Amino acid sequence: MKAHHLSALGRRTEDPPISWLLAMALGRPQLVSLAAGFTDNKSLPREKVRRLMREILSSPQTGQTALQYGTTAGDPALRQLTSQHLCRQDEQPASRPAYSPERMIITNGSQQLLYMLTEALCDAGDLVLVEDPSYFVYLSILQSHGIQARGIRMEADGVDLDHLEGVLRDLQRRGELRRLKLLYLVSYYQNPTGRTTRYAKKAAALQLLRRFERAAGHPLYLLEDAAYRELRFGGEDIKSALTLNGARDRVIYTGTYSKPFSSGARLGFGLLPEPLLSAVLRIKGNHDFGSANLLQQLLARTLSSGLYLKHLDGLRQRYAYKARLMREAIERHFPAEVQWQEPAGGLYFWAQLPGRRATGMNSAVFRAALKNNVLYVPGELCYADDPSRRKPNHEMRLSFGGATEDSVRQGIARLGAVLRNRPRGR
Amino acid sequence: MKAHHLSALGRRTEDPPISWLLAMALGRPQLVSLAAGFTDNKSLPREKVRRLMREILSSPQTGQTALQYGTTAGDPALRQLTSQHLCRQDEQPASRPAYSPERMIITNGSQQLLYMLTEALCDAGDLVLVEDPSYFVYLSILQSHGIQARGIRMEADGVDLDHLEGVLRDLQRRGELRRLKLLYLVSYYQNPTGRTTRYAKKAAALQLLRRFERAAGHPLYLLEDAAYRELRFGGEDIKSALTLNGARDRVIYTGTYSKPFSSGARLGFGLLPEPLLSAVLRIKGNHDFGSANLLQQLLARTLSSGLYLKHLDGLRQRYAYKARLMREAIERHFPAEVQWQEPAGGLYFWAQLPGRRATGMNSAVFRAALKNNVLYVPGELCYADDPSRRKPNHEMRLSFGGATEDSVRQGIARLGAVLRNRPRGR
Repeated sequence: MKAHHLSALGRRTEDPPISWLLAMALGRPQLVSLAAGFTDNKSLPREKVRRLMREILSSPQTGQTALQYGTTAGDPALRQLTSQHLCRQDEQPASRPAYSPERMIITNGSQQLLYMLTEALCDAGDLVLVEDPSYFVYLSILQSHGIQARGIRMEADGVDLDHLEGVLRDLQRRGELRRLKLLYLVSYYQNPTGRTTRYAKKAAALQLLRRFERAAGHPLYLLEDAAYRELRFGGEDIKSALTLNGARDRVIYTGTYSKPFSSGARLGFGLLPEPLLSAVLRIKGNHDFGSANLLQQLLARTLSSGLYLKHLDGLRQRYAYKARLMREAIERHFPAEVQWQEPAGGLYFWAQLPGRRATGMNSAVFRAALKNNVLYVPGELCYADDPSRRKPNHEMRLSFGGATEDSVRQGIARLGAVLRNRPRGR
Repeated sequence: MKAHHLSALGRRTEDPPISWLLAMALGRPQLVSLAAGFTDNKSLPREKVRRLMREILSSPQTGQTALQYGTTAGDPALRQLTSQHLCRQDEQPASRPAYSPERMIITNGSQQLLYMLTEALCDAGDLVLVEDPSYFVYLSILQSHGIQARGIRMEADGVDLDHLEGVLRDLQRRGELRRLKLLYLVSYYQNPTGRTTRYAKKAAALQLLRRFERAAGHPLYLLEDAAYRELRFGGEDIKSALTLNGARDRVIYTGTYSKPFSSGARLGFGLLPEPLLSAVLRIKGNHDFGSANLLQQLLARTLSSGLYLKHLDGLRQRYAYKARLMREAIERHFPAEVQWQEPAGGLYFWAQLPGRRATGMNSAVFRAALKNNVLYVPGELCYADDPSRRKPNHEMRLSFGGATEDSVRQGIARLGAVLRNRPRGR
């Protein structure tokens, strides 16, 4: 018997490190986890969902529709409502072609969109540009498909454009541009850094990509992942890349109802240019021929009833409050040498230890934290395997999403105690 | 610009022909569709779901759980209940290892299980054995991944074992056995033929596969797709391949709650041997890190409350009634030269026209049927692209699942009128 009878993809697909972190948290009730990207339990829309489910299931017509198969692209009403909602966010007329419901697919969270898009567009050996650091499950998808990721350095307001241009030039010089497919930006309150991309940077990045298209020999897409966009509790909303010139042909936009409404009724969506949309629809036909209609009818009614915006108001206040708690705890407990930025939305703080003090799963800091019953996501897990630079390993992602108020305070206090002791070593 | 910048998979993935059939039905309200594999609207469990949703969402504890993320493998209670349910069906002690909830993954319908299993196990160029004809969306999955399917002839009680052995020998002779990964059986009320595989045939097929394993150099799996198992309205239930000796290492079993409960709250499951289970779990982590928890909590409560079995009772009577309607209509309206078998469960009749009269989408029969406002699934769509035999093209799949009573009667009457006219030609 051959030891490895799995496919190449089966062998390449790795156990996500986060699952180890989650499993660890399950087994130790006294452990405070600031690791998971869970949503806040208290703010889950239990009453709203109960009311809407009752409405949907009370009438034979809407009830039967919800319990029957839908279409592969997703419920037309939900696509229409999502499109309108996006137009309002971006202050665009509802007729703007880039936002057409005809260009939209409803998916099982934005995660499934990222997966299917990768399948539709990329072969093993292809290249994708990602923020450095980036969303680690997207990095896992790329890795499992044998796709290489190149990290683009980040600044406080998004990717470093000079570095992006340098990498594109370098790829052109090496004749590798033909393998490049897209640039992936988690543009709002990024996972893991909490940073938001300035609008002018989205525009400049798209322009840069276009400049190199001739050399690439095919379109270079900008993939905007707006998963955290609606979890804004400070500052202005920034317009999406869909508003840019030429967006209809080059911008892929994905969003989700999972984080802002309910991760248990998980739905997301994508807006895609052709021929990507058709390809992703065909792939969705093979995955599951359409997301669960009951959840889609629930979300459509949430949007059309106005309950969605109402829920967002409360949710933003709640996350603003929890982020403030975490900031105050960090200010009080972390030594001054630790750098961190306060996010204006999303679920995460990002902290950097000085002097190359390692934070990885085998590091002295991580082990001391675990011993002190607190868990974080080691920053190095969020960096692509990009051989062109050393992987930073002195950072941590701290989530205030799932933890209770007490846990946020206690977790940061425990972590602060660990950091003040300055444990060293990998 | 290159015309084709999609991935190999993106280019290979074809538009499922069924989507064309469905789209056609949408645009023509007077058309009776006997094509779609939809479930019966009248029997959808609207009242039950309303009651269970109210229960789940009334308590903060169960409500919050349902609206929050779950685990990648799926809700432990749902896996436990599903395992117990399977043990009862197969008359096995709940402690039997092959049925352990630890071996189970909850998926978005059994469709997603079929997809992820293919990803985990098969590379482009690999081989899979399928029934001839077989479930066309599985054939699409294979085709999109560049996997070749070889058709095994069917008899009234499942695959022709002599042909199976002959194909295995042939592959061995040609040195192609190393590319073979599994045999796929839709063993209960098969889609599209309605046929059920006799227990002894499952056992013999598994034994045959084992005999050729040494030459293959790796395990040869039996993939049992039991999607229609619970839609039984006649005869005895037949034990699954999980009861066979060695099943724990070689049988992959998949089932669904989509057909027997609600296709709008779509959930399925798989029981898998290692290392397939781990590989599929890792892949699921990249697809969507777990199916929607709200639906899982709904199904768990449906099972634990006893409402599931109650629902099944009613559903079976309903489908038995609709199958009888279709049989009576066929007996009345079809010319005697058309052959057909009455199924003992599931959603489909399968009919064969004599004298090589073609039924495909470009055939005179199909066009006459369309003109007469009735739609069926042409049999040829259910055959793999297997160059070793000519694809039969004189059959049709007729579904009594989604159509109303009137539509079943009227659709068959219209089709009968077409068939009595004996249109000929491709």
